[in-house]
Amino acid sequence: MKIIGKALFTTNGWDIIKNSYDVQQSITEGSNFMVGNGYLGYRGTFAEDRSEHYQGCIVTDTWDKADGKWEELTTVPNALFVQVKIQNQWLKQNDTVKSFQRVLNVINGMTKREVVYLLKDGLEIKITEEKFASYTHKHVIAMRYQVKTNKACDLKLISGIDSKVWSINGEHLKNHNYFNMNGDCGVHAEATQADHHIWVVEKNMFSVDTEKQSYDQDGIFGHLHEIKLSADESFVLNKFMLVMTSNDNNTPSSEIKKIYNTLPTYDKLLETHEKAWLKIWQTYDIKINGNIVDQVALRFNIYHAIIATPTHKSLPIGARGLSCQAYQGAAFWDQEIYNLPMYLYSNPSIAKNILLYRYKTLSGAKRKAKKHGYEGAFYSWISGKTGDELCPDFFFKDVITNRPIRNHFNVWQIHISPDIAYAVDQYYQLTKDTEFIESYGAEMVFEIARFIVSRVDFKPRRNRYEIVRVQGPDEYHENIDNNSYTNYMTKHAISIAIKYLDILDPLTIKTIKQKIDLAADEITLWLDVNEKLYLPQPNNHNVLEQFDDYFKLESIVPASKVTERLIDAEEYYGWPNGITVYTQCNKQADVVQLLSLFPKLFNDQTVMSNYRYYEPRTLHFSSLSPTTHAIVAARLGLIDEAYNKFRKAVMIDLLNTNEAVSGGTFIGGMHTANNGASWQMVVQGFMGLMHHEGKFHLNPQLPISWDSVSFELILYGHRYSFKTTKTQLYITKLSENDTDIEFVVQGETYCFQQEVTIHLR
Amino acid sequence: MKIIGKALFTTNGWDIIKNSYDVQQSITEGSNFMVGNGYLGYRGTFAEDRSEHYQGCIVTDTWDKADGKWEELTTVPNALFVQVKIQNQWLKQNDTVKSFQRVLNVINGMTKREVVYLLKDGLEIKITEEKFASYTHKHVIAMRYQVKTNKACDLKLISGIDSKVWSINGEHLKNHNYFNMNGDCGVHAEATQADHHIWVVEKNMFSVDTEKQSYDQDGIFGHLHEIKLSADESFVLNKFMLVMTSNDNNTPSSEIKKIYNTLPTYDKLLETHEKAWLKIWQTYDIKINGNIVDQVALRFNIYHAIIATPTHKSLPIGARGLSCQAYQGAAFWDQEIYNLPMYLYSNPSIAKNILLYRYKTLSGAKRKAKKHGYEGAFYSWISGKTGDELCPDFFFKDVITNRPIRNHFNVWQIHISPDIAYAVDQYYQLTKDTEFIESYGAEMVFEIARFIVSRVDFKPRRNRYEIVRVQGPDEYHENIDNNSYTNYMTKHAISIAIKYLDILDPLTIKTIKQKIDLAADEITLWLDVNEKLYLPQPNNHNVLEQFDDYFKLESIVPASKVTERLIDAEEYYGWPNGITVYTQCNKQADVVQLLSLFPKLFNDQTVMSNYRYYEPRTLHFSSLSPTTHAIVAARLGLIDEAYNKFRKAVMIDLLNTNEAVSGGTFIGGMHTANNGASWQMVVQGFMGLMHHEGKFHLNPQLPISWDSVSFELILYGHRYSFKTTKTQLYITKLSENDTDIEFVVQGETYCFQQEVTIHLR
Repeated sequence: MKIIGKALFTTNGWDIIKNSYDVQQSITEGSNFMVGNGYLGYRGTFAEDRSEHYQGCIVTDTWDKADGKWEELTTVPNALFVQVKIQNQWLKQNDTVKSFQRVLNVINGMTKREVVYLLKDGLEIKITEEKFASYTHKHVIAMRYQVKTNKACDLKLISGIDSKVWSINGEHLKNHNYFNMNGDCGVHAEATQADHHIWVVEKNMFSVDTEKQSYDQDGIFGHLHEIKLSADESFVLNKFMLVMTSNDNNTPSSEIKKIYNTLPTYDKLLETHEKAWLKIWQTYDIKINGNIVDQVALRFNIYHAIIATPTHKSLPIGARGLSCQAYQGAAFWDQEIYNLPMYLYSNPSIAKNILLYRYKTLSGAKRKAKKHGYEGAFYSWISGKTGDELCPDFFFKDVITNRPIRNHFNVWQIHISPDIAYAVDQYYQLTKDTEFIESYGAEMVFEIARFIVSRVDFKPRRNRYEIVRVQGPDEYHENIDNNSYTNYMTKHAISIAIKYLDILDPLTIKTIKQKIDLAADEITLWLDVNEKLYLPQPNNHNVLEQFDDYFKLESIVPASKVTERLIDAEEYYGWPNGITVYTQCNKQADVVQLLSLFPKLFNDQTVMSNYRYYEPRTLHFSSLSPTTHAIVAARLGLIDEAYNKFRKAVMIDLLNTNEAVSGGTFIGGMHTANNGASWQMVVQGFMGLMHHEGKFHLNPQLPISWDSVSFELILYGHRYSFKTTKTQLYITKLSENDTDIEFVVQGETYCFQQEVTIHLR
Repeated sequence: MKIIGKALFTTNGWDIIKNSYDVQQSITEGSNFMVGNGYLGYRGTFAEDRSEHYQGCIVTDTWDKADGKWEELTTVPNALFVQVKIQNQWLKQNDTVKSFQRVLNVINGMTKREVVYLLKDGLEIKITEEKFASYTHKHVIAMRYQVKTNKACDLKLISGIDSKVWSINGEHLKNHNYFNMNGDCGVHAEATQADHHIWVVEKNMFSVDTEKQSYDQDGIFGHLHEIKLSADESFVLNKFMLVMTSNDNNTPSSEIKKIYNTLPTYDKLLETHEKAWLKIWQTYDIKINGNIVDQVALRFNIYHAIIATPTHKSLPIGARGLSCQAYQGAAFWDQEIYNLPMYLYSNPSIAKNILLYRYKTLSGAKRKAKKHGYEGAFYSWISGKTGDELCPDFFFKDVITNRPIRNHFNVWQIHISPDIAYAVDQYYQLTKDTEFIESYGAEMVFEIARFIVSRVDFKPRRNRYEIVRVQGPDEYHENIDNNSYTNYMTKHAISIAIKYLDILDPLTIKTIKQKIDLAADEITLWLDVNEKLYLPQPNNHNVLEQFDDYFKLESIVPASKVTERLIDAEEYYGWPNGITVYTQCNKQADVVQLLSLFPKLFNDQTVMSNYRYYEPRTLHFSSLSPTTHAIVAARLGLIDEAYNKFRKAVMIDLLNTNEAVSGGTFIGGMHTANNGASWQMVVQGFMGLMHHEGKFHLNPQLPISWDSVSFELILYGHRYSFKTTKTQLYITKLSENDTDIEFVVQGETYCFQQEVTIHLR
């Protein structure tokens, strides 16, 4: 076994093993060891765990605002609740545990526990529990629960539905109605504030006969089973949890019944599930030879990125995936900037689905723009089902005064709209999917351009447009002007709109113009803004100023020194009067983020100057920061530094390095963007992949402990495999095609029929 | 005696009498009972008082930044220090005091104390002390110090210079060099950081012979005198304090010596001083018959407005006058909006001097504009000698965390520049002093227009200019857009610039244009901004929104309820996270301020709606608020309400109603703007005087307890007297002139040769 970190191990680069249990780690481990399938996420808790252990099954498309302030996804009743009573005590993780092991197998999306309790009179009982969220039956989570004792004994077992589940901001279900389904239990409930309903049903399949009776205590509705075991006898309970909501289809109660009645056996379900995962890994896996810890950590992140991504319909990727309700189960810019690239290069149809989500929420973005006095599409900072803004005005609180803080993520972080335009065009460039642009992309980009020109200010005496009062990627500085990231992204977005006007079929353009009532004077203004939008330029030291007057702020290097000024460890660092506000200390990559998205915007020397200036001024307190820095560092050839950032990034969740609470707000759970961006660190960082002017550039530079890296990509619709060692790069065309893709490797251009081997300098 | 307020009395409407002493009131009483002459202010402390009693003599034009943060006027060594020792104890205000009375005589600018101490063995000693800051010898403060005992005794008396004086932010003098002048003492010292020097000299004239020896202890440098007194004998010490700085003239040390050598006797000096005050009161006095308390309170305020105003050269009127160092002895918008009007109507040459101060500081205003990336003249929020910004970035502090607060008075409160343009044009309209406009006013207004057009933003899709990120008169709301006050004032300022271009002699305009290098395209832009600047309009309820989205903020009525949310009584209420920030609670008049300055901007119904909306949402925590509300209420005929505000305003200092410390910053001292604006409440409020389109409108409506009000004004250069009773208004032309000024009284127009009696409705 190879040690990953404190009490974490792997054996084969696919499993995460933990041999000890710490109740303090419930939030983290429940996330790390979770299972999910893009429809729902089931936290890595144990069968007997309840709300105090942060038990939760988070289901997509169930937004509800129970407390009148926070709209978030619903944690539904837990139909996998099982608890054993023996020697008159309920078994749970406590000091009667003799041995314990839990495992997450990312290869097939399965989480397991094996625990042995040593009870009175030498009675040992072993519970083995395994769980997966089916990838073929997305409304189903399956659990195999096995009990074995070393001596004959009588035991009791409750199996049922626990409705007292963990929820962060209020109880999202009301009017629970329990029902019987073929001897199993089900519950129907209504959303507290929203208008949807949910159904949750259990299905129990015992390997032994049990004496059972109804059980209804303390929120658990089910059956109490009495079982007699001989010495060394075991029994198995295969238990299924079925979830359906009225948002999933029009006849949810009959649909769930249908699933109940046609459910395959546990083994059959597992078999198809494993086949699905095999295919998933064929698509996304990155093999690292030489460092099994990096290998498993990377796969762990890719696994979490995948299970966080809804594919059953166009829904957002939550900033914490489906690992908990934090960040409201909603999309941030994370989705396009951190999660999209892996799909863009590995599975464009999923990338398309993500962008279609943005298309489907265009009307919400337009409502938001209008609400704030703008035109076009002002995408929401926190975007749920409809695209309307979910981000509350008061997000954090001042933990010293207990007063809410008016953060302005929802109104000033306008770069979200240009970010989406950037993503649309990235998709277009990598897939050449003109139909998507004609049907959806151009309309989105045009509405974004509309938003932009209604948002910028013209400064008559400077003869330029400026972008005033924004918040850049670095969230600690609100209310800033001419944020370099925002201005460059905005200019890029406008130029995409102008490009689409130019390159798309005139008839199509005419149709879109008619559809969205786009007038000629609007386009004139786009051209003017495109020409006159202020783009900050590097100063005498080659450094781009993060925003107007940033350089006048107090410089603290390294940024971490600023933490000495904290009064309370949970203080929010940013707006309006946190310790970083009047300093150059950044939460995360900002100018470096810009350089990461536009690697050719400046020459290498300038990129280096900026990296060297900003990195020490960055606290990396956002999980979005290490990956971005790793990518830019790797491109600059700073491989050791890039590798350190990589290690930091892939371990954020595994080693629980980031705070679960900030400014009084729960922000725990999986760092889904970082999970997705882990893929980017290897492909776009160490492999140096970038798409520029119709060519794919590569510049492999592996960390010292890695012997080779290999993966597959889909470029312009065609599948290629890549493998690099320290000395050679192998590229193989996997699909039949006549496309002549040009690769530029370490500055040399390669064009080949089937495969190529390139000697690296 | 008529009681004014707690322990305060008057006998004749000219004196403020206090019969008790409370050391807790030292800050307030030192200000209220002060003397001054526009060159210096000497706080109303007693001869033996020292820094712990907030003793201070604040001298104009002595800005120094001792602590590296706050530039403020210097409190110079106290050359009026006298203390008596008898029965081996130093006399001071304590429990040996048998009787006490202090008086401020505003009729001649004199402050007095009479105190009797009852000591051991029935020994009584009476000290009588009177002081005035000479209006004929502005570098001189004179004190008559008289001692009388009921029994024979030996006493000791120190008379000297106390250099350990009160200073708020650091010690502003260093390298004190003491010297002898004809047996009296002097001190020369250098500014700590600035490059000026000061000289302070005492001159002692005893009525008896004394045995004297040098005294130099604990910062007091002077002489110890031994005096033998018989029973019921008294002696007098006439003592003079002479102050001169190197900013006053080029040969300060010989100048001060010259004054020393030619100083008249105390009685002669007093005689000329009293004559000067007689003339002052002929100019400014407002006689109120019927309410002696209102009479004395009003005169008290006018007195303080006068002694705060430098007339010896062009220097600012400090926001606390010369009563202390608070607000840095510097000009705010207070000067033009609250202090100027009394001079405009009563003594235009002083009004001109105030505006010349702004002209002389134009280069500072231009430097400030340039520093912030603008053009033209961005006048400083806190303006001292040079017009450069004195307002520190961090003005208040968060008293809960002890962290400094980044207030933005210095960068966002841009209305200061339009305010000055407004004042320039008010002067022009009331004096028709074209020469001033040609020589100074137009240039100032043009530079202000330049600033404005470099500051506004054009919103292309709204086809209008907006003014973004400002702070209006209500200082609790920073970072707001399209503040109605600011936008209307800005539009007015631009229109003044355009008017001057139109009405001034073309050759003069050409000269000014050349001087300030004003290009044609700039003027084109002025016209465009004048045409397209966004002016918020009253809503369906006739209410003008204070700024964009103000109506969306929490409405708390009455505003005072918001104080329940305080955690610490000294908390700053405003930016960034004070209790009012996300509410409609205002510190002071804002929209109402606009209506006060432009009484004809909207019809009476709209003015009423705005008054009724905003008044209950206003905390009136600025001393600038009650007067403005009183004026607008009086014009609306809400006489009882106006009178209540009047009483509140004229009593702010007398009754010490406002806090001396806010957000950890000392803001005590006289409320100089309110002192000046007290005059306005009567003339522009109850008398309803307004100048509109070449006519003077009057609409007298006296408070119930007033029988009559009378005063003199100078209109278009000609002196008029006004007297109104409840039924009649008398206007008399005092100076010979052929001008036919039209008065509009209660809607009827009057034009007369010598005098007119008008019956009021």
